[in-house]
Amino acid sequence: MRQALHRLELSTERRGLFEITPQVSRWVGGQKIGSGLLTLFCPHTSASLLIQENADPKVRADPETFFETIAPEAPGRYRHGAEGADDMPAHLRTALTQTQLSIPVESGALALGTWQGLYLFEHRRTPHRRTVVLHLLGE
Amino acid sequence: MRQALHRLELSTERRGLFEITPQVSRWVGGQKIGSGLLTLFCPHTSASLLIQENADPKVRADPETFFETIAPEAPGRYRHGAEGADDMPAHLRTALTQTQLSIPVESGALALGTWQGLYLFEHRRTPHRRTVVLHLLGE
Amino acid sequence: MRQALHRLELSTERRGLFEITPQVSRWVGGQKIGSGLLTLFCPHTSASLLIQENADPKVRADPETFFETIAPEAPGRYRHGAEGADDMPAHLRTALTQTQLSIPVESGALALGTWQGLYLFEHRRTPHRRTVVLHLLGE
Repeated sequence: MRQALHRLELSTERRGLFEITPQVSRWVGGQKIGSGLLTLFCPHTSASLLIQENADPKVRADPETFFETIAPEAPGRYRHGAEGADDMPAHLRTALTQTQLSIPVESGALALGTWQGLYLFEHRRTPHRRTVVLHLLGE
Repeated sequence: MRQALHRLELSTERRGLFEITPQVSRWVGGQKIGSGLLTLFCPHTSASLLIQENADPKVRADPETFFETIAPEAPGRYRHGAEGADDMPAHLRTALTQTQLSIPVESGALALGTWQGLYLFEHRRTPHRRTVVLHLLGE
Repeated sequence: MRQALHRLELSTERRGLFEITPQVSRWVGGQKIGSGLLTLFCPHTSASLLIQENADPKVRADPETFFETIAPEAPGRYRHGAEGADDMPAHLRTALTQTQLSIPVESGALALGTWQGLYLFEHRRTPHRRTVVLHLLGE
């Protein structure tokens, strides 16, 4: 049994979902670990992780709109506003989705379903540098 | 340290919560692993995982209603509607709950609390065949 | 590769977020495990786990208010009310946040981001004794 750790570095130019399945699968595939557990960890408080359908691009637009509706920018509503009107909603959208995801690895590949894609969910309006920590354990 | 993998196959006949604690516990109990970590992974985009109280059956009805209210079927609202009015809300309810859960294993049993049950949360109206991937790591 | 398990015991005197980063980091630091995976598991159905910004105390007040709004106490709305008006909303707020979190460990420390703190999210109004199960796997 052994472990591997990697930091995936990303640039997000706007709010929304950015698919990371290809980069994650490629790194896992290169580790020569047949079976194990991959953990993705997002070390940010205004970006998060999400598994969504990756077949129809419209499926990406709908969650973006939905989370903007459920945790709206509403400057008067939040006490914490020092970092901009999109900051507190970003923390709330992070709380409602995932900061961490673990996925079994089988025959060297992620056990994702046919329609599942891995996404980084950027919640800030301006471009950001983001990191996703990948931890793989297996043999 | 060793690993075991299993696919739990389920049939859901309607929307709602289906308890899977007995099947999961039985499989874990048969693996002869005293201490470790169990990961449940749901390879679907319109069904998810949830830990809820399993003492009072009414506790199951309330989350079902709640998630129908918070992410309603509203055909005009979503851009992605090709797979039916219940499809996009199903993706959103999946995003708000869990696609993966990991639970420590101690003395060969899950470290669940007294009132916790493991549920598959079906978000589509029609019957579906569902899979939950179980990955156990320990010794 | 080896494992360690610990139960963190907490007293919550009110609803809201209670930071547990120092206790968790101290326990991990004492395990002499350089790299691995830490899993936090909350064995309760009316308290949950959350990673939030820990720089500005106002960031704690906003999520508390937000989750009270999104899953409100509304006695007529829920079928399950036997355990008090704050019980069913507590289950829903638990469902919307996390019961489990896994975090990579690197050089003996949690791979948390600069602004991330680990919180127990108490959803009941009255004081409760709470447990968080910590499971560490690594070498």
